[in-house]
Amino acid sequence: MWTRFRRGDLRLGRTEAFSDGVFAIVVTLLVLDLKVPSLADARDSKSLANALLALMPQLLSWLISFIIVCKFWLNHHHLLTRARRADYAMLWLNSLFLMGQSFIPFPTALMGQYPHNPLAVTLFGLTMALNTALFLLLQRYILRALLKPEFEGTYGPHWLRKAMLGELGYLLGAALAWINIPAAFLLYMVTPLFFVVPPADYKKTVGLAQQ
Amino acid sequence: MWTRFRRGDLRLGRTEAFSDGVFAIVVTLLVLDLKVPSLADARDSKSLANALLALMPQLLSWLISFIIVCKFWLNHHHLLTRARRADYAMLWLNSLFLMGQSFIPFPTALMGQYPHNPLAVTLFGLTMALNTALFLLLQRYILRALLKPEFEGTYGPHWLRKAMLGELGYLLGAALAWINIPAAFLLYMVTPLFFVVPPADYKKTVGLAQQ
Amino acid sequence: MWTRFRRGDLRLGRTEAFSDGVFAIVVTLLVLDLKVPSLADARDSKSLANALLALMPQLLSWLISFIIVCKFWLNHHHLLTRARRADYAMLWLNSLFLMGQSFIPFPTALMGQYPHNPLAVTLFGLTMALNTALFLLLQRYILRALLKPEFEGTYGPHWLRKAMLGELGYLLGAALAWINIPAAFLLYMVTPLFFVVPPADYKKTVGLAQQ
Amino acid sequence: MWTRFRRGDLRLGRTEAFSDGVFAIVVTLLVLDLKVPSLADARDSKSLANALLALMPQLLSWLISFIIVCKFWLNHHHLLTRARRADYAMLWLNSLFLMGQSFIPFPTALMGQYPHNPLAVTLFGLTMALNTALFLLLQRYILRALLKPEFEGTYGPHWLRKAMLGELGYLLGAALAWINIPAAFLLYMVTPLFFVVPPADYKKTVGLAQQ
Repeated sequence: MWTRFRRGDLRLGRTEAFSDGVFAIVVTLLVLDLKVPSLADARDSKSLANALLALMPQLLSWLISFIIVCKFWLNHHHLLTRARRADYAMLWLNSLFLMGQSFIPFPTALMGQYPHNPLAVTLFGLTMALNTALFLLLQRYILRALLKPEFEGTYGPHWLRKAMLGELGYLLGAALAWINIPAAFLLYMVTPLFFVVPPADYKKTVGLAQQ
Repeated sequence: MWTRFRRGDLRLGRTEAFSDGVFAIVVTLLVLDLKVPSLADARDSKSLANALLALMPQLLSWLISFIIVCKFWLNHHHLLTRARRADYAMLWLNSLFLMGQSFIPFPTALMGQYPHNPLAVTLFGLTMALNTALFLLLQRYILRALLKPEFEGTYGPHWLRKAMLGELGYLLGAALAWINIPAAFLLYMVTPLFFVVPPADYKKTVGLAQQ
Repeated sequence: MWTRFRRGDLRLGRTEAFSDGVFAIVVTLLVLDLKVPSLADARDSKSLANALLALMPQLLSWLISFIIVCKFWLNHHHLLTRARRADYAMLWLNSLFLMGQSFIPFPTALMGQYPHNPLAVTLFGLTMALNTALFLLLQRYILRALLKPEFEGTYGPHWLRKAMLGELGYLLGAALAWINIPAAFLLYMVTPLFFVVPPADYKKTVGLAQQ
Repeated sequence: MWTRFRRGDLRLGRTEAFSDGVFAIVVTLLVLDLKVPSLADARDSKSLANALLALMPQLLSWLISFIIVCKFWLNHHHLLTRARRADYAMLWLNSLFLMGQSFIPFPTALMGQYPHNPLAVTLFGLTMALNTALFLLLQRYILRALLKPEFEGTYGPHWLRKAMLGELGYLLGAALAWINIPAAFLLYMVTPLFFVVPPADYKKTVGLAQQ
């Protein structure tokens, strides 16, 4: 039974197209939480300004989620360049990961609407921790079973340690939400920044070099 | 007239791109049914917890639909690797299949909102049975008219029998909804699992082998 | 100034990807008009059945629009296989055409909600007539300025006559809406069916042949 | 640290697929602001006509945004044909640009709902000015660090001057909103028209020529 998952002459290209579609829709749907406020006097710019200020938590949630999803897209993009083909196990792990991604608009909207509710803020962090875990599962499988031979041996403990840092950041933020909500927001913003560039030993893994 | 459907120098690549777009949007739209609840006290995490628990049926509907659509995507992906080109008949069968897929968010939302209403639960199963039938139509046409020569003769009765199992699972679930709703939910969850891996004789059809 | 539109080393592939994205989203958004009805008694399947019957006009609008957009996608797909490259004029004509496509969900929702209002039914037909006209503009430009040499001379008056038929069908439906609404619906359903297969002289234009 | 951004064997193709997804969704979501009006008498075409006339500002906002996003898509499409590969810095600049694009539906809806509110009209212009600036950042980076050798030296001051014109047009419109709102709308409509064709010295940069 389990060996059947290892089969498949499936195409990476189509997997990426489906994934890119999901990523693109997730980041674009996020803005739908920014609802146009209703004003008593439609021409009064002061009351519009106040209504927009009240939307700041939603805007901040949107911003944080956007950066995090872009980071996931970038990591996913990088990871799939390492796979030599797709099999059923990989496609299901990828689907689970995309399920996590497509869930993101809900906790984002929740945190945006209830920025002072510790449960809402905690759920945001737990969702991101879950997404990181789902990504790590996919990565682990690809590195073990589908890695292109030329990259064999280049993904050392350095990579795992760094990934754990992301996991930890989101979980810590989720815990902080019950003590100090602004600190949780800050941690959610800072955590993805650890992943904007590849790790220090990346050079060795590509041999493509700097300019 | 009918022979005209067999014509066309249409491209599989663009058919896949359009289909992947529809699949990606369907799975991502599903989450829009999870509406942020309104709370009397915005900071009270207990009342938020209760409101979220009330969303469980919606979450479950979302989960089931997500897995089912991913399964359809995987089967579609696999099927189209067998076609040697696209013609008008195939593109219309594909469009009908995509119409069924794009309908899925509606019965999903219906079952999520009325999980104790047998009609809502039945409609979900009927929609999935219809989608399976539309997929089988597309598959039958491709295997008969557009199959790549190297796969000739490899799609035996085994395939049809398995596909019938899916059809049966959804129809049985739809019937069960009038007797025992949790059993129907369970069947909806179990049915797609029969299709997470290719059938046992898949090895012969590809010759690509295990690792 | 005008000659500048003829320039550009732009890629057909990306134009198709963008267009496919728009088509896929349009057909999938259409289902969002099917709103889950609210019931007094959530478990009563009879009142749900009645509420769903009341949704029939929306369902019918959705169905008609879905078929029409798929037909446009198919024609667009076919047309772009005839172009040898993309230039600025073509991309703007394509953008205008996509603007018309992306507008379709609005008149669809309007006709679904007000199926007995002649203006709503008329606007649906006018939108489709406009979309047909925008497609014909794009087609005319590609056939004149960007046609692959091997297809030179194969798009005779037959093609234009058939396209005019589509234009006429939608306009006639829009007029009929003021006299007999069911007849207008019928015409909207029948008109795209003229285009499900390529015209009779298609064989000559491809030389790809039947099977 | 900063040099790490210069690394990456990332693919332009996938960057374009993700970007095209975002562009396609943004232009298609715009139409969701056109809400079906509710009528006292569902069959009365006169009251529907009045309700639709009241939607004109939303329609106009939709139209302007559609043209502007298509223009950005076209410029993005053109720019990426000049890059020889993708690195981390480029992908982040691209993500920031897409964040700006995906924000567009919000100020579009705001201006559509409050067309007489100077703040709403101003915010639309500021959003477009921000998007232009984000595009210029991406362009500047690609021209400096990733330009294909054959285009070296062809992007002269002409290009920057023209881009500045766009920036200026939106900022001026944003200022005009406080003095004369129709003039601001007009400027928003006219500004993208400067960019429908490539600049006059484009010929030299491609050598692909006119027909």
